[in-house]
Amino acid sequence: MYDELKERVLEANKMLPELGLVTFTWGNVSEVDRKEKVFAIKPSGVDYKTMKKDDIVVIDFEGNKVDGKLRPSSDMPTHLELYRAFEDIGGIVHTHSPYATSWAQAEKALPCYGTTHADYFYGSVPLARLLTQEEIDEGYEKNTGKVIIEAFADKDVMAVPAVLCAHHGPFSWGHDGFEAVHNAKVLEECAKMALYMLMVNPKASEAPERIKDKHYFRKHGKDAYYGQN
Amino acid sequence: MYDELKERVLEANKMLPELGLVTFTWGNVSEVDRKEKVFAIKPSGVDYKTMKKDDIVVIDFEGNKVDGKLRPSSDMPTHLELYRAFEDIGGIVHTHSPYATSWAQAEKALPCYGTTHADYFYGSVPLARLLTQEEIDEGYEKNTGKVIIEAFADKDVMAVPAVLCAHHGPFSWGHDGFEAVHNAKVLEECAKMALYMLMVNPKASEAPERIKDKHYFRKHGKDAYYGQN
Amino acid sequence: MYDELKERVLEANKMLPELGLVTFTWGNVSEVDRKEKVFAIKPSGVDYKTMKKDDIVVIDFEGNKVDGKLRPSSDMPTHLELYRAFEDIGGIVHTHSPYATSWAQAEKALPCYGTTHADYFYGSVPLARLLTQEEIDEGYEKNTGKVIIEAFADKDVMAVPAVLCAHHGPFSWGHDGFEAVHNAKVLEECAKMALYMLMVNPKASEAPERIKDKHYFRKHGKDAYYGQN
Amino acid sequence: MYDELKERVLEANKMLPELGLVTFTWGNVSEVDRKEKVFAIKPSGVDYKTMKKDDIVVIDFEGNKVDGKLRPSSDMPTHLELYRAFEDIGGIVHTHSPYATSWAQAEKALPCYGTTHADYFYGSVPLARLLTQEEIDEGYEKNTGKVIIEAFADKDVMAVPAVLCAHHGPFSWGHDGFEAVHNAKVLEECAKMALYMLMVNPKASEAPERIKDKHYFRKHGKDAYYGQN
Repeated sequence: MYDELKERVLEANKMLPELGLVTFTWGNVSEVDRKEKVFAIKPSGVDYKTMKKDDIVVIDFEGNKVDGKLRPSSDMPTHLELYRAFEDIGGIVHTHSPYATSWAQAEKALPCYGTTHADYFYGSVPLARLLTQEEIDEGYEKNTGKVIIEAFADKDVMAVPAVLCAHHGPFSWGHDGFEAVHNAKVLEECAKMALYMLMVNPKASEAPERIKDKHYFRKHGKDAYYGQN
Repeated sequence: MYDELKERVLEANKMLPELGLVTFTWGNVSEVDRKEKVFAIKPSGVDYKTMKKDDIVVIDFEGNKVDGKLRPSSDMPTHLELYRAFEDIGGIVHTHSPYATSWAQAEKALPCYGTTHADYFYGSVPLARLLTQEEIDEGYEKNTGKVIIEAFADKDVMAVPAVLCAHHGPFSWGHDGFEAVHNAKVLEECAKMALYMLMVNPKASEAPERIKDKHYFRKHGKDAYYGQN
Repeated sequence: MYDELKERVLEANKMLPELGLVTFTWGNVSEVDRKEKVFAIKPSGVDYKTMKKDDIVVIDFEGNKVDGKLRPSSDMPTHLELYRAFEDIGGIVHTHSPYATSWAQAEKALPCYGTTHADYFYGSVPLARLLTQEEIDEGYEKNTGKVIIEAFADKDVMAVPAVLCAHHGPFSWGHDGFEAVHNAKVLEECAKMALYMLMVNPKASEAPERIKDKHYFRKHGKDAYYGQN
Repeated sequence: MYDELKERVLEANKMLPELGLVTFTWGNVSEVDRKEKVFAIKPSGVDYKTMKKDDIVVIDFEGNKVDGKLRPSSDMPTHLELYRAFEDIGGIVHTHSPYATSWAQAEKALPCYGTTHADYFYGSVPLARLLTQEEIDEGYEKNTGKVIIEAFADKDVMAVPAVLCAHHGPFSWGHDGFEAVHNAKVLEECAKMALYMLMVNPKASEAPERIKDKHYFRKHGKDAYYGQN
């Protein structure tokens, strides 16, 4: 029944090591089917090389497993919170990709330093705060979703499709699982170039608003003219 | 009619990912045919892996498409300005290669720190300034070409075949598209080694004039003795 | 007689270059058979590509060779000390992997800066001190084992399955040789991200205790819920 | 007549890109035949991929070409000076490998920070000074050899088989061309780890003498016990 969704999620997960975003099993992709009110996600701790379509787990919007034999990724409740909170999110990725994770460990939001960033993220990629002891005890993965939602209180989640979780690592998303993977790679490249830039010039400033606007809106919205559509 | 030109531009574009200079579709190569007064350029947002000869777009010196079904790279007007301003430029490359882009984001020209740089670039690779709001509104990509031209007001564009656009990234060029790609890679390597050098010794000085002259002129001009020609 | 053990040790050694952990012959893996009171280890200075099962050397708990024609890794006495001191160690790896070695050369323990580290190492990866002249003269490799043991005087060796030897490089271990290799890669990734993090924010703090506890214990011990077991 | 020598030099040159030490044609290897008083060297500006045995050039000890159709590497006179000055050198490599070149550009000798370095280089890899204008005019490549010789006035050239030329890049050598290539890679790895180490701890100290001695002499000289010989 969920064959196509599981196939897509399998493929999207296999892109993570191909794009150099994961070591071992350190990452996961999910994609939602809003009509069926389910999402498919990578199983926990399974190797990307040997993973098969039927290892993919399908979860409903109450967090119950509706298909699959394996245990879902331990980060599943984070994905669930995000799908429930943001209707436009169609796919979610979590990785420990090294550069983005380094910014997360440094407890720094990722500023928009150039047009590569501005082409995809409208402004800084925010930092989601550390969880309290109570939040950890009450439900670590669910509350990781909650603090991400909190970080977007005054931001458009589709205009900035990524977040850095303090001392943890990045989550990214998109209209589907493949776009979420794409954005995970963009985030990693931007985090890398931001770090290199600081080494060249520790006092470098952010790109000015006019550059951010120009690059973002030439790729997004009704006046976009990048690409073939 | 433009088959050979398009084939060359296709090949040159495919070298960008092979040389590790682009992620996704973040780069483009063009090459000019001065007799026919046209240049061929990569289409906008098309994947390097699936790109075919007939996806390449041919543009005349007024910026009109004269061959091809797809939309040209959104950076096409920048290429056009450069071909019109500098008669010796035969090919142009734009990338977001990470090290060169980091210098561009840092708003720093790339000084000549050693012989690798001096072998190809006679002095600093200049920084082209940010565009004003008016310049962005009037024609962002065309005016990106204009500020590059401005950065070469007192420099020989063929002796320093590259530029860093502030908060954006590098452009490079050469006598043809392949040389432009070659120079894009050289720039990336020099930007990388300059950054590493600063980490070893933040107070390192530029290479002295005599070293710059020696290395540049053993490879260029009438007294050159590097290579087989 | 030791065929299976030697085959496993061969395979585990061959993983080191595949995981990008060694240059040339700069690393070695061993695995112990506690029943037979022997361990198998890589021969000294032999290329990973041409290494065969029968090049693997088997050593008893007094340090005598009981099988194999070649000389064991010069680090063999370090492995021997660790197997004798810690009953739970089933496999040991030594490399000069660049990031972990850089922390060792810097004479810094590797703090727990984030969840990637916390998933595998419960607290800092300690620094083993430099040997004195007397210790070097008396038995360099054996005493390298002794100072590692000293570094774990107040730590659980299985909860922090790695160490950095001052001005030298890392050792890691696990329940078998493959887990030891796995931990060598984890250590290298954590050392890399810690270094990047310092470049983003030299004043970044360690992950708080509650995050360390949460991540370590969701993967280890009786309440673990990561993976499929 | 020089077939075997040329074949070896071809092979050794092809190792440079395989080991990640060169971009484009930025490197060269030579090997000497002391009986015949000739050395074979890479031709100037020729691609490693298409290079054939008969492209290799053979030069006598007066610098005359005795075999081959192509022009030798422009660095040939540097190799010649070194072969003439140091009888034990059997092969020489020059590259622009990024980390070693960065130390050279920074005008810093490479200190011995750890055992990886001590295993191959007995003490710092020295910095050869910049040439004067007169030295450049009189014979740039020959005098590059002279300043390298000067840098070894009080050092054993076989105990420290590499040098960094200020604002230029590294040369390395060995008993033959393959050992010279090996040492070029070791130098690059040590330069990389030294740079990383400075990022972790800018005040890190060199490895103490006793560690340098121990590691160097367990691999070299009459009491060596590393490897199978």
